[in-house]
Amino acid sequence: MSLTDILSTISFDAAGLVPAIAQQHDTGEVLMMAWMNREAVQETLATARVCYFSRSRNALWRKGQTSGQLQHLKELRIDCDGDTLLLLVDQEGVACHTGRRSCFFRAVRDGAVAGIAAPLVSPKTLYCGSHG
Amino acid sequence: MSLTDILSTISFDAAGLVPAIAQQHDTGEVLMMAWMNREAVQETLATARVCYFSRSRNALWRKGQTSGQLQHLKELRIDCDGDTLLLLVDQEGVACHTGRRSCFFRAVRDGAVAGIAAPLVSPKTLYCGSHG
Repeated sequence: MSLTDILSTISFDAAGLVPAIAQQHDTGEVLMMAWMNREAVQETLATARVCYFSRSRNALWRKGQTSGQLQHLKELRIDCDGDTLLLLVDQEGVACHTGRRSCFFRAVRDGAVAGIAAPLVSPKTLYCGSHG
Repeated sequence: MSLTDILSTISFDAAGLVPAIAQQHDTGEVLMMAWMNREAVQETLATARVCYFSRSRNALWRKGQTSGQLQHLKELRIDCDGDTLLLLVDQEGVACHTGRRSCFFRAVRDGAVAGIAAPLVSPKTLYCGSHG
């Protein structure tokens, strides 16, 4: 089976994208969800460093390239319909641009939205003005 | 904080939808990803039974209504940008319409796509022809 065969099992949407969930491989923590195009999937499989596609910047987004918070790919999984990916990763540092480990740091509790995790690092130290 | 306030923290896309990841609350297993509209979020919070929006059927999709494989909501989390939800659930039976516990039963291993989980129940016994 070639890379082309692997890519052919993935259903990219009309914009050429597929949602990808990043999960810390050993703890099971869901870290973030972002999007990939064919090139991002290809690069991620080739390098074992997670590369997304940034819809806001309309460009490949090599996770951690600016922030240093790399995601190392442990395994790429594909769902039943081929239209969602699950990335088992080893996250260096924090996944969220706010400096939190996971992007899912808000929860509905007692009928209100509550923050449930504090930043581990300052976003300023992560980016110095840019985003990634 | 009212339900309106909670809903206002969620960024629905141009089609009025937001992706929602379902994770088994105690084991951390990622079960599936589907979509919700405002009404689905509202109903899920009100009933604590997960309700999605089916894009193919263009209708609310009360998970398990046909198959009996209900998802009980333990907690709804919202990501940093408000454009993805993480549902911590207690999944009755199986989440996948193929009869597997999780929809992510295919993995790229040794350069090929491999099945990594077998069906626990027959899809025929789940649906008798319908889907949900």
